[in-house]
Amino acid sequence: MISIVTLTTDFGTRDGFTAQMKGVILGICPEARIVDVTHDIEPFSILEGALVLNGIRKYFPPTAVHVGVIDPGVGSQRRGLAVRTSTGYYVGPDNGLFTFILKESAEVEVREIRNPEFTRPEPHPTFHGRDIFAPAAAHLSAGRMFEDVGPLVDNPITLTVPKPVRSANGVEGEAIYIDRFGNVTTNVPADLLDRTVREIRVAGTRIPKLSRYFAEVPHHEPVALINSFGLLEIAVNRGNASTELHIAAGDKIQILW
Amino acid sequence: MISIVTLTTDFGTRDGFTAQMKGVILGICPEARIVDVTHDIEPFSILEGALVLNGIRKYFPPTAVHVGVIDPGVGSQRRGLAVRTSTGYYVGPDNGLFTFILKESAEVEVREIRNPEFTRPEPHPTFHGRDIFAPAAAHLSAGRMFEDVGPLVDNPITLTVPKPVRSANGVEGEAIYIDRFGNVTTNVPADLLDRTVREIRVAGTRIPKLSRYFAEVPHHEPVALINSFGLLEIAVNRGNASTELHIAAGDKIQILW
Amino acid sequence: MISIVTLTTDFGTRDGFTAQMKGVILGICPEARIVDVTHDIEPFSILEGALVLNGIRKYFPPTAVHVGVIDPGVGSQRRGLAVRTSTGYYVGPDNGLFTFILKESAEVEVREIRNPEFTRPEPHPTFHGRDIFAPAAAHLSAGRMFEDVGPLVDNPITLTVPKPVRSANGVEGEAIYIDRFGNVTTNVPADLLDRTVREIRVAGTRIPKLSRYFAEVPHHEPVALINSFGLLEIAVNRGNASTELHIAAGDKIQILW
Repeated sequence: MISIVTLTTDFGTRDGFTAQMKGVILGICPEARIVDVTHDIEPFSILEGALVLNGIRKYFPPTAVHVGVIDPGVGSQRRGLAVRTSTGYYVGPDNGLFTFILKESAEVEVREIRNPEFTRPEPHPTFHGRDIFAPAAAHLSAGRMFEDVGPLVDNPITLTVPKPVRSANGVEGEAIYIDRFGNVTTNVPADLLDRTVREIRVAGTRIPKLSRYFAEVPHHEPVALINSFGLLEIAVNRGNASTELHIAAGDKIQILW
Repeated sequence: MISIVTLTTDFGTRDGFTAQMKGVILGICPEARIVDVTHDIEPFSILEGALVLNGIRKYFPPTAVHVGVIDPGVGSQRRGLAVRTSTGYYVGPDNGLFTFILKESAEVEVREIRNPEFTRPEPHPTFHGRDIFAPAAAHLSAGRMFEDVGPLVDNPITLTVPKPVRSANGVEGEAIYIDRFGNVTTNVPADLLDRTVREIRVAGTRIPKLSRYFAEVPHHEPVALINSFGLLEIAVNRGNASTELHIAAGDKIQILW
Repeated sequence: MISIVTLTTDFGTRDGFTAQMKGVILGICPEARIVDVTHDIEPFSILEGALVLNGIRKYFPPTAVHVGVIDPGVGSQRRGLAVRTSTGYYVGPDNGLFTFILKESAEVEVREIRNPEFTRPEPHPTFHGRDIFAPAAAHLSAGRMFEDVGPLVDNPITLTVPKPVRSANGVEGEAIYIDRFGNVTTNVPADLLDRTVREIRVAGTRIPKLSRYFAEVPHHEPVALINSFGLLEIAVNRGNASTELHIAAGDKIQILW
């Protein structure tokens, strides 16, 4: 069996914090294959972390343990969670980071990390990533029983995410995430777009159809397509949709048919 | 045998895209050692990706599989390629990314990735990195026959790179790449500099000799040397040559003897 | 035994330089688990590299080999060092990078890397990271005897780091490092703060107590705590202390009781 531990944090890559976590993981589970998902989540942006964690969900073996640490409440009374689903294990703070995982996974079981055998002695109050979440993930990856991590939790915190609204002549959604290319992810899933799209309107721009890939339109033209998360995305071919079309997270988007 | 898969992309490190590729690779070839070369290639800069891929060529075992995804044409009719050379395997789009690999390697064989056993079912039109190139690399790394990947290609696309010109009194070349320190890589290879250099001129700066290392000149003085790619480089000792000497990619450089 | 090689450099992540080092390491020690600590040390900042290396010291198994390459003097006469301590091995230039390691470790032995069996033939004068430090670390990780690396060194270079000063009514220290969140690390270790703190003054801001974690104070309020390096830190809850409180490295900090 392969032991995979992935890391998703807002720690950046400058200070060695994530390396401290990796040292702890390798000390407990030497055979762990550690995968950096990202350490560049916007600081404290739980929504961004939740989207990225959900984005990788389907692409790892179900034995993988995914650690998420976007944790502005570290050291306070917020709980630490371990989550078991049919597609993988998740470890991190109880603050909404697992919103989409909990909503979209099958066979979900949530436990609070309370067993001191799963954590480092005297966890530092500002760095649960290293002292609680990394060791808990390493112990799970090394084969310790999920049930031993701590008591069941039946009310994990989830974020309120805006929902797309369907009407007679289309769908209204919202921009929720801007990626590194300036591509705009919306909250509109592919399965809502089950009729021929006549026009897409966002931030004053009108896009006449749904494309399959960027290069279907000329360079620097706007393009709408279903992205690799399965969500409607607004992009500019070889350009930056967010800056060129002036689209920000929260902007409304209208799909008309 | 050690299975190494390296990744060179312009995906950045924020969005989890490269982690999706890694999950796919580990699912197919659990023993693969994945090495991030860089995910910070300037978006869509095929030349930059080609230079970086060529730069690592000689430092990995020849069983390594190098995945390159700088792929503005993703989803269009451009082919996906697998390349076998005496120094390693390469997988990525047919857009010039392997220009230097094809030119400088021995025993080159190029094939189009067409065998569906090497890819994920129903590849997403915007993310061949995850659905075609990552799985193809993982299958090669896991020991599948190179010949099985698809038909031979005899006309892979290559970039036109400016060539240095030799004259009676020296060489004229061009700045082609600025690195993270602001050091300027030129297209002039070491073996063209086979006479005593009297002066190097670039962007109005005159450098009186070729040095061996940065610290041969005082702090904040310009220095010319052969860099670790084997190419002439213009730098500033403990400074940034590109900004301090106003050198950009494309600027001419004259070497006089 | 697990072979771990960690990398701490100022090479950035754009150019493939660190991948060249990784290829060299895996060629010598295929079973090595390579951990990126950071490649984003401020270029040429030996102090920052020294702090980060010391920060990870306690979290890796003692067999780990830690490579540090912040090396503005590369190619000059500065020596290359290998250091053995009770908490791990360290490899890099003799320029102060191991200041805290040497000061705070037990059973320290320092040797100069001189044995050509530990390096690549004809090391490039601008890239000892790839041609000397990476192979030396890989050979140590693969089990070669530390004694074979080269002769003993009894005068490794160390940086002069400002020391906190204790007085009748408190301690005066200094800001030494700003991290990715804008949190300010000082040179004041936890064990100097053995009395009840009445006030902390820095850059015109007064903080009335020592907290245990960020969220003990309201959003956007300044907070002082012991950070995960065991040093006094000034932060702003969910904010950036450096920019919001105008604190820079070198600023004095007064702790009063």
